[in-house]
Amino acid sequence: MFKTLALPLALAGVVSSAYADEGQWQPYQLPQLKSELKRIGINVPAEKLADLQKHPMSAMVSLGGCSASFVSNTGLVVTNHHCAYGAVQRNSTAEKNYIANGFLAKTLADELPAGPDARMYITEKVENVTEQINKGLTAAMSGRARAEHVENRIKALIAECEQDKAYRCSVPSFHRGLEYYRIRQIMIRDVRLVYAPSDKIGNFGGEVDNFEWPRHTGDYAFLRAYVGKNGRPADLSVENVPYQSKDFLVVSAQGLKNGDPILLAGYPGRTSRYKLPAEIRFARDVSYPAKVAESKADLAVIAAATSGNAGAEVRYASVVKGINNGLKKTEGLLEGFARKDIAAIKDGQDAEFRRWYAQHGSNKDLLKELDTVIAADMTMSDEEFAWNVASTTEMLKSARTLYRLAVESTKPDAERQPGYQQRDMNIIAGKLSRLEQSYLQNVDQARFTAALQRYSKLPVASHPKGLDVLLPTPESVASLYQQSGLGETSKRLAWMGKDRKAFEQSDDAFVRLAVKLHDIAMSLEDRRKELDGNLERVIPQYMQAVIEWKKSQGKPVYPDANSTLRVTYGTVAPYSPRDGVIKGPFTTVEGIVEKHTGKAPFNMQENLLTAVKEKRYGVFKDNVLQTVPVNFLSSADTTGGNSGSAVLNKNGELVGLNFDSTYESITKDWYFDTAITRAIHVDIRYMLWVMKEVDHADNLLKEMTIKYPAK
Amino acid sequence: MFKTLALPLALAGVVSSAYADEGQWQPYQLPQLKSELKRIGINVPAEKLADLQKHPMSAMVSLGGCSASFVSNTGLVVTNHHCAYGAVQRNSTAEKNYIANGFLAKTLADELPAGPDARMYITEKVENVTEQINKGLTAAMSGRARAEHVENRIKALIAECEQDKAYRCSVPSFHRGLEYYRIRQIMIRDVRLVYAPSDKIGNFGGEVDNFEWPRHTGDYAFLRAYVGKNGRPADLSVENVPYQSKDFLVVSAQGLKNGDPILLAGYPGRTSRYKLPAEIRFARDVSYPAKVAESKADLAVIAAATSGNAGAEVRYASVVKGINNGLKKTEGLLEGFARKDIAAIKDGQDAEFRRWYAQHGSNKDLLKELDTVIAADMTMSDEEFAWNVASTTEMLKSARTLYRLAVESTKPDAERQPGYQQRDMNIIAGKLSRLEQSYLQNVDQARFTAALQRYSKLPVASHPKGLDVLLPTPESVASLYQQSGLGETSKRLAWMGKDRKAFEQSDDAFVRLAVKLHDIAMSLEDRRKELDGNLERVIPQYMQAVIEWKKSQGKPVYPDANSTLRVTYGTVAPYSPRDGVIKGPFTTVEGIVEKHTGKAPFNMQENLLTAVKEKRYGVFKDNVLQTVPVNFLSSADTTGGNSGSAVLNKNGELVGLNFDSTYESITKDWYFDTAITRAIHVDIRYMLWVMKEVDHADNLLKEMTIKYPAK
Repeated sequence: MFKTLALPLALAGVVSSAYADEGQWQPYQLPQLKSELKRIGINVPAEKLADLQKHPMSAMVSLGGCSASFVSNTGLVVTNHHCAYGAVQRNSTAEKNYIANGFLAKTLADELPAGPDARMYITEKVENVTEQINKGLTAAMSGRARAEHVENRIKALIAECEQDKAYRCSVPSFHRGLEYYRIRQIMIRDVRLVYAPSDKIGNFGGEVDNFEWPRHTGDYAFLRAYVGKNGRPADLSVENVPYQSKDFLVVSAQGLKNGDPILLAGYPGRTSRYKLPAEIRFARDVSYPAKVAESKADLAVIAAATSGNAGAEVRYASVVKGINNGLKKTEGLLEGFARKDIAAIKDGQDAEFRRWYAQHGSNKDLLKELDTVIAADMTMSDEEFAWNVASTTEMLKSARTLYRLAVESTKPDAERQPGYQQRDMNIIAGKLSRLEQSYLQNVDQARFTAALQRYSKLPVASHPKGLDVLLPTPESVASLYQQSGLGETSKRLAWMGKDRKAFEQSDDAFVRLAVKLHDIAMSLEDRRKELDGNLERVIPQYMQAVIEWKKSQGKPVYPDANSTLRVTYGTVAPYSPRDGVIKGPFTTVEGIVEKHTGKAPFNMQENLLTAVKEKRYGVFKDNVLQTVPVNFLSSADTTGGNSGSAVLNKNGELVGLNFDSTYESITKDWYFDTAITRAIHVDIRYMLWVMKEVDHADNLLKEMTIKYPAK
Repeated sequence: MFKTLALPLALAGVVSSAYADEGQWQPYQLPQLKSELKRIGINVPAEKLADLQKHPMSAMVSLGGCSASFVSNTGLVVTNHHCAYGAVQRNSTAEKNYIANGFLAKTLADELPAGPDARMYITEKVENVTEQINKGLTAAMSGRARAEHVENRIKALIAECEQDKAYRCSVPSFHRGLEYYRIRQIMIRDVRLVYAPSDKIGNFGGEVDNFEWPRHTGDYAFLRAYVGKNGRPADLSVENVPYQSKDFLVVSAQGLKNGDPILLAGYPGRTSRYKLPAEIRFARDVSYPAKVAESKADLAVIAAATSGNAGAEVRYASVVKGINNGLKKTEGLLEGFARKDIAAIKDGQDAEFRRWYAQHGSNKDLLKELDTVIAADMTMSDEEFAWNVASTTEMLKSARTLYRLAVESTKPDAERQPGYQQRDMNIIAGKLSRLEQSYLQNVDQARFTAALQRYSKLPVASHPKGLDVLLPTPESVASLYQQSGLGETSKRLAWMGKDRKAFEQSDDAFVRLAVKLHDIAMSLEDRRKELDGNLERVIPQYMQAVIEWKKSQGKPVYPDANSTLRVTYGTVAPYSPRDGVIKGPFTTVEGIVEKHTGKAPFNMQENLLTAVKEKRYGVFKDNVLQTVPVNFLSSADTTGGNSGSAVLNKNGELVGLNFDSTYESITKDWYFDTAITRAIHVDIRYMLWVMKEVDHADNLLKEMTIKYPAK
C-alpha cells in the first residue's frame, strides 16, 4: 500500500511492495475480508457491502457489458462516455452532432431515448442454486448427458424466476462449475440519454491513448432509468416517468490523494485466473500465435484483393477492423506473456498445490483426470481452429446456416438448437441480408482459396477426421463461385424456409458443399458437448481442492469474473513500468493543454483550454496538486465489463469512474501482477469541473447530492 | 528544491516548483552565493570553494574536453569511462581486449601509457587580465584592428606565463569579451591507464541509451598522473613516478537520497545562455533548419553513390557518421525549440532588460548598435553557409589548403595565419594523406555536383559577391575530376611546398579553381575578422549592462561556459517529462537485469548479473532503495566538458561522477529550464560495488580514502 512515506520507494522503482489488491469478490464474501478492508482504511462495514438490498450496493447498475450507478433518487445514472456512445450516436445527425458537440438535456423533456436495445439491470437477489443444479447428476453420466442435465436445470430455474416480466434472471456458474447462483435483476427497458460531453472530452486521446498512461479522458456520461406510472419496468413510452431509485451514491468532490483506499463495484466480464500452466502455455505457444498468424494472413489476402479499389476497401473496412481488433488484443497478450513468464509463476503455484493435494486430497485420480480433460480440450481446440480456417468464406458460412436451419426445422421449436428457433428467424434473415454490405465475390474467393492453402499446411493431426477429402482444392474454388447463386442477396434469402430435401437435391455448389460437410460439423459439436460435460465434472473438484488449499492458508478465493456483480478494493497508487520511472497516480488538466495538438484525437475544445489557462479551478482544485486532477490510477482488480464502475472512497461515496487499465496490465485476465497492474479512473472532480466550468450542466449538479470540500 | 515532503507534488507532475539551480559559477563568485549554498544545505564554506589552492577545488583536474578529480595523494584520478576510452582502445589488442573485458592494473608497474596526446591539467591560478588586454583599445578602431590588438595581447600574456614549461596558459574571454582571465594550469604529460571496467559496464546502453533516462551506465575509469623524479611534469618515461597530488577527494559510500544537496566542479565547454532573441530565432528558423536540410541532402547523395558497393560504404562510413552526429544534435535542438518557445521566453526577458536600460543605461545607442552587429553577424553567417555548401568537395578543399599554404609561406613564419605555420606542416600532410581512406572520385563528384545544385537554390542574397560566375556549372563538374590529379595521394602531397606561382600557372582543374576562388575566400575571412572585432566592441557593453541590471535585482551573473573551471550546485531531484510521469532520481542494479538482453549494448557480464540476483549488495545497499543505486539525477547546471566532473555531497566528499543529461535538457545550452533540466550521474556506490563485488579492484579501494556507512 502506498502511503506518503512509501513514496521515496516508489520513486526508486521499488513498488513491488505495494499491497496485493487482487480479487473480484462476490459481495457475500466481503465479511471474510473484514480485517483487510479495515486495514486499508475502508469505513463502510463489510456486512453492509455484502447486502445487495443496502447502500451502497443497491445503487449499482449493469448496462449489460458496462457498469454504472445511480446518483439521484430519480433514476439518474452515471457511466462511461464509451458505454453511452451508442445512445449518443443514434441521436446524432449532421445538424445535431452530439458526438462532436456533446449533448445536455436541460429538462426531463429534453432527454432522448438511448435506443431500443438499451437496458439497465439492477441486481436484486443472488441465491446459491448449486444443489438444485447438481441433483440427479451421477458419476457414471456421459459428458454430453451431464451437460444437457445442467442446461435443462438452468432453463427451468430461469423460467421460474422470470415469471414476473420485470425481471431478467440468469444462472451463471462460478469456479468453473463448482457453484451456480441464480441472479434476479430488475430490467429497465426505457433508458434515456441525459448528458454526454463532446468526444473531444469524452474520448480525448482516442485509440492512441487506449491502454496508455498518462491519460486525460473525460470518459463519463449520464443516462436515466424510466418506468411506467406504476413504478414497474415498461417499454419506451412518453407516459413513462423517471424511476424512483431507492438508493443512489453521494458524490464526493473532496477528492482522493495518493495512498487513499478505494472500493470499486461493477460487472467484470471474464477472467482466466485459475487456468492451469498447461492451458497458459497452450494459449501462449499454440493457440494465440496461430490466431495471430491466421489473422495476419487473412488481412493480407483482403488487402491484396481490395488494393487500389476504393469501393472494395470501404466494403471490407468493418471486416478488417474486426480482425484487427482481435489481432491487437492477442498480440498485446503475447507481448505481455513475453515480458513476464506467467506460466513459470503458475508452475510454482501448481507444484505447491499438487504437493498439498498429495497429502490432503480425497480423489487420488483427480489430478490425472484433470490433466486428461485439459489435454483433450486443447486437442479439440486445435481441430476447431483448423475447421474455422477451412471455413474462411462467407458463402460457405451462409450455406451452412441455411442448411442447419432446414435441419433444425424438422424438430419441434422447443427442441431446436438455440439460435435456430422461431424467435431467431429475424436475426438470421438480417444477417444474411446485411452480408451484401461487406461482401465481394472476388475478395471472398481469394480469402477461401488462401485459407484452404493455409489449412493444408496445418498439422495433419488437427484436421477434423474425414474433412480433407470433402474440401474443394484451392484450384477448384473459382468454379464454386461460378456455380453458386448465394452471392446474390435475393437468392440467398430465398433459401430460408426451404426444406432439408431441397438442399440435398440442389446443384448450387456452396449448398452442396454445406450438405457434404454437415456430418463433420455435427460430429465436432457433439464432441465439444461431451468434452464440456467432462470438464464440468472434473474442474469443479479441482476448484474445490484449490479453495480448501487456500483456506488452509487462511486465504479466501474469489471466482473468475463471469459478468456478475463484484466488489474489489485497493489504493490510489502509482507504479513503476521500469526501473527509474514512475507513472501516476494522477494526471491534471494542465496535461490536456500539453497534449492538445488541435488534431483528433488530441483536439480539445477551446472553452476547456481557456478555463485551464485561466486557472478557473474553483472548488475542484486539489490541495496537493494545486490544480484539477483528470484521471488517476488504483490497484483495484478490474477487467472488461468494469467500464463505468463506481469508484468509492472509504465512506462509500462516489469519487471516480473506472474506464481502462494500463498497458502493463494487459495480461491481468490470466495473472494479477500486483506490482504493475493498475486500473485507470476518471477523477470525479474533473467530471464535476467540466460540468460546472465547461458544459454548465447545473441542473444535474443540483440533482446530485455532492459533498464539496470545506474551504 | 526536492525534500521528501515535496514528493507527492513530484508524483503529480508538478515539479516546476523545484529550486532554480542554473549557474556555472567561476569559483571566485561563490562567496556571493553564500546564503544560497547554506540554504540548500552545503556545509563547505563558500570562501573555501573560491580558493583554487584549497580543498576541494585543488583536487579538480581537466583532461582537456573532460573533467576529473584526484582521489589519492599519489596521483590517482577518476573520470568517465568514455573520457578514458581512447586510452583503453590504444592498449587493446585482439588477445588483450580491454574494451570488451576491462583493464585493471594490480600494481603501479602494470599501469599503461594513456597515449602520447593524453594530458592532465590542474588549474593553479586565475587572474583577471582585462585591463592589460583592453589597454590601448580605442572606440575609433576598426573591428579588424580591434580583433588583432586583442589577439596580440593574449599571445604576449600566454608567452609570458608559459616560460615555465610545466604550465599551460590560456586567456579566454568571459561574458562574450567583457572580461579576460589568464589561467595557469600544471600540465601533466605522462598519464597512465589504471583501471577501466568492461564496456559492458562502462558503456551499458551505448548509443541507444545516450541522452536517455532510465540509465544504467557504469561510466567511470581511473587514470594516474606521473611526473619526473623532481616532482615536475615530464614526458613519458619509465623513470617517472606517481605525482604527489597535494589534494584529493575523500570518497563517501554513505550515499545521497532524493532532495540532498550536491556540488559539481568541472570544465564545461560552451553555452549560449546570453544570446539575444534574434540570435535564437536565427538558429531555430534559419541556420539550424538549413544545416539539417544540407546534411540530409549530402547524406542522401553519399548513400546513392555508395549504395550496393560494400567497399564504398565502408570507405565513407566515418564521413557519414560524422555528418549524422552533427545532424542528430541539431535535430535534437530543433525538437527542443519546438517543445518550448525559448525565443518567446527570451523576448520577455529582453523587453524587461530594454525597459530597465532605457532608464538606467549610459549609452543611448548601445541597443541599436547591438541589434546592428547581431544582424550583420547573421547576414555574414548566411554567406559563410552558402560558401560551405559550394565547397562540399574534398578535392577543392585540398586544393585550397595547398594554395593557402603557398600564399602564407611567402610571409615570415611568425606572421603566418595560425594553422599554416611551420609547426602545422605535419598536420597538413597527415590530413592530405589520410584523405585516401575516405575518398572515392565518383562519390566526391556526386557530392560536389549535387552541392552546386543546392547552392544555386539558396537565396541569392546569401551568395558571396562574385562567387557565382567563378563556380563550375553542375554539368561541368565531371570534367574537373578528369582534369585533376589531386585524387591521387602522391600527386596531392607533391603540391606541398610548391610556390605560389606554380599554383597560378598550373592546369590542374581543382588547383585552378582554388586560385580563382582565393580572393573571395580572403574577403570572407577579412569581413569575419572585422565583424568579430565589432561584436567584441559592442557585446561586452551589453553584457556589462545585463550584469548591472541583474545586480539591481540582487542576482549575480555567471558567464557562459568557456572550458574553464566552474562550480555548480543543485539537489538530487526527479523530474516530470510530461503530466502524470516522473523520472528518477535513482536507478538500481535490478534495472540492469531488467534491461539485459544478452545483445550489445544491453549485454551485461554474467558475474555482475549473478551478484545482483544473489543480492550481494554489501555495504553499498541504500537504506531507502534497499539495493545498490546505479545512476542518479540532479538539478546541477552542466554541459559538454563536464563529463567526469566530481559530484560532491554537502561536505565536499565524492559521491558521484557526472556523465550525461536527459533528453529534455538538450536545449539547456541556450536556456536553462529549471523544471526539466537534469544531469545524469554515476552513483559512486555503484562504482565501488563493481570494484569490490565484480572487478575485485581491492588495491584501488585500499588506495582511496573511503567513508563507509556506519552499520
